[in-house]
Amino acid sequence: MYNIGIDLGGTNIAAGMVDETGKILIKGSMPTNRERPTDEIVSDMALLAKKLIDDSAIDISSICSVGIGCPGTVNLETGEIIYSNNIPMEHYQMANKFKEHLDLPVRIDNDANCAALGEYTVNGNNSSVFVLITLGTGVGGGVIMNGKIFHGFNGAASEPGHITLISGGKQCTCGKKGCWEAYASATALISQTEEAMALNKNSIMYDIAKCEGKVSGQTAFEAAKRGDSAAEQVVKNYIRYLADGIVSIENVFQPEIIAIGGGISKEGDYLLKSVREYTSDNGFNKYMKKTNIVAAKLFNDAGIIGAAMLSKI
Amino acid sequence: MYNIGIDLGGTNIAAGMVDETGKILIKGSMPTNRERPTDEIVSDMALLAKKLIDDSAIDISSICSVGIGCPGTVNLETGEIIYSNNIPMEHYQMANKFKEHLDLPVRIDNDANCAALGEYTVNGNNSSVFVLITLGTGVGGGVIMNGKIFHGFNGAASEPGHITLISGGKQCTCGKKGCWEAYASATALISQTEEAMALNKNSIMYDIAKCEGKVSGQTAFEAAKRGDSAAEQVVKNYIRYLADGIVSIENVFQPEIIAIGGGISKEGDYLLKSVREYTSDNGFNKYMKKTNIVAAKLFNDAGIIGAAMLSKI
Repeated sequence: MYNIGIDLGGTNIAAGMVDETGKILIKGSMPTNRERPTDEIVSDMALLAKKLIDDSAIDISSICSVGIGCPGTVNLETGEIIYSNNIPMEHYQMANKFKEHLDLPVRIDNDANCAALGEYTVNGNNSSVFVLITLGTGVGGGVIMNGKIFHGFNGAASEPGHITLISGGKQCTCGKKGCWEAYASATALISQTEEAMALNKNSIMYDIAKCEGKVSGQTAFEAAKRGDSAAEQVVKNYIRYLADGIVSIENVFQPEIIAIGGGISKEGDYLLKSVREYTSDNGFNKYMKKTNIVAAKLFNDAGIIGAAMLSKI
Repeated sequence: MYNIGIDLGGTNIAAGMVDETGKILIKGSMPTNRERPTDEIVSDMALLAKKLIDDSAIDISSICSVGIGCPGTVNLETGEIIYSNNIPMEHYQMANKFKEHLDLPVRIDNDANCAALGEYTVNGNNSSVFVLITLGTGVGGGVIMNGKIFHGFNGAASEPGHITLISGGKQCTCGKKGCWEAYASATALISQTEEAMALNKNSIMYDIAKCEGKVSGQTAFEAAKRGDSAAEQVVKNYIRYLADGIVSIENVFQPEIIAIGGGISKEGDYLLKSVREYTSDNGFNKYMKKTNIVAAKLFNDAGIIGAAMLSKI
């Protein structure tokens, strides 16, 4: 049996035909064009799903469900998107609307939760508590407990990016000050890099940014690897922010695995080695088995696979 | 059927005979005298349990188990205390030692987890996710999910007091800097009160502390209620520290109920009203049902009741 997973993003709609083990057999994508009416977006999502069915030559009777990972706050029971800022939606009946185009059981969940479930499915090693943290525009993620997405009592969990890192600190997009996201997202790292560049006019960060065409989440890491002292300081501070939030997550959840995803995770062990050292020294748990901190492996496929797996949990 | 619950504290051993609903039928206590050999402490714990059996006149065949809430890190499977700083113990076979004195099934867990389970049993309203936060010498607590203690993958969860509140901030007793505990415990509040007193020699906090015989967690609250501006600032800052940590807990766990215990929680609505306002304004969840923040009700009985309930989960 198979499931179709759809990852509804602000830029692209990505979808895949996924087998029961979480393997994508075939996938496709199209632009979201998020400013248009949501009904049109959903119509295109269904077209993409139908194309996957045609191209894979899988009989529709072998397809259990369609799962959709959506931005914003969703009602898991009714398939409604209660509110999304990224793609403007409010009380939108996503599951029902989709079914008008393709009559299969539809499950929806938050996109970050789907990514966590996808990463868990392929790389979670059956861990009883698994956390995905993605370092992108924001700090997102999700928590998987005993193979199921942890939703809290109200469906709104988990939002690890919005734990406090510095009480009363930098303004976060969520309205609160001092969230982890305001220090550890790629957006925050770019700001930290730009601030350091403004104070260090001779830094090779300027050369790297010029080659890249912009300041990115890689700029400071690349310059630090070449021995630029201002960049080294940016990276050191950033890793401290990142690791201090990871310690918080460890101390409350004690996950077997924390997988770090998003663009910055591509720094791999250069980043993770320092994070592991800090969390090992500063985690509250000194006597029990320790959390394994790893790089996420699926990148953009995580959301597709997790959405496809929604019907299985 | 009944269970005996024992709360092994640094100062006192408290124990009670508890029925299946979590009601204490009879209870007793004795000093721990924690400097003496642990075998002697355990012998006294068993004496206390036997006295409860005699005094209650309950036949031993009607007693299912003895539950022991212990400080430190415990191995739930083997009944071993791996490490405790409060009462010096290292790899101590608590359950087996206790059984040498009283041959009943013995379950052990961390004392804060037991308190959370006790509070949940009596005041948890069958909530699917319940968190107890205790504001005492430290900030402790535990998480109850679907009626069971949440232990993480390794038995070390949950330590909500050791989430980061101000990265790189005040030294915490755990070794890390900037933990919530270093700002929101009664110990921290007393330091904050003393610092404000040193800067405000005319504050009525001096009069209140003189009457009380010491600066306590109540000093600033009492002075603030009487209009002392320095005390008002202490209370305002303290509530901000407390509420900012609670927002972190809400954003990751989305609990149906967060119960606040420990001495400071006796301030009741004077404290909780401000905490609720802050978390309502600053929580990430704007569209789903909100966490109910309440005062814990059981105080010292929570640990006894929770320990007694260990055999039922």
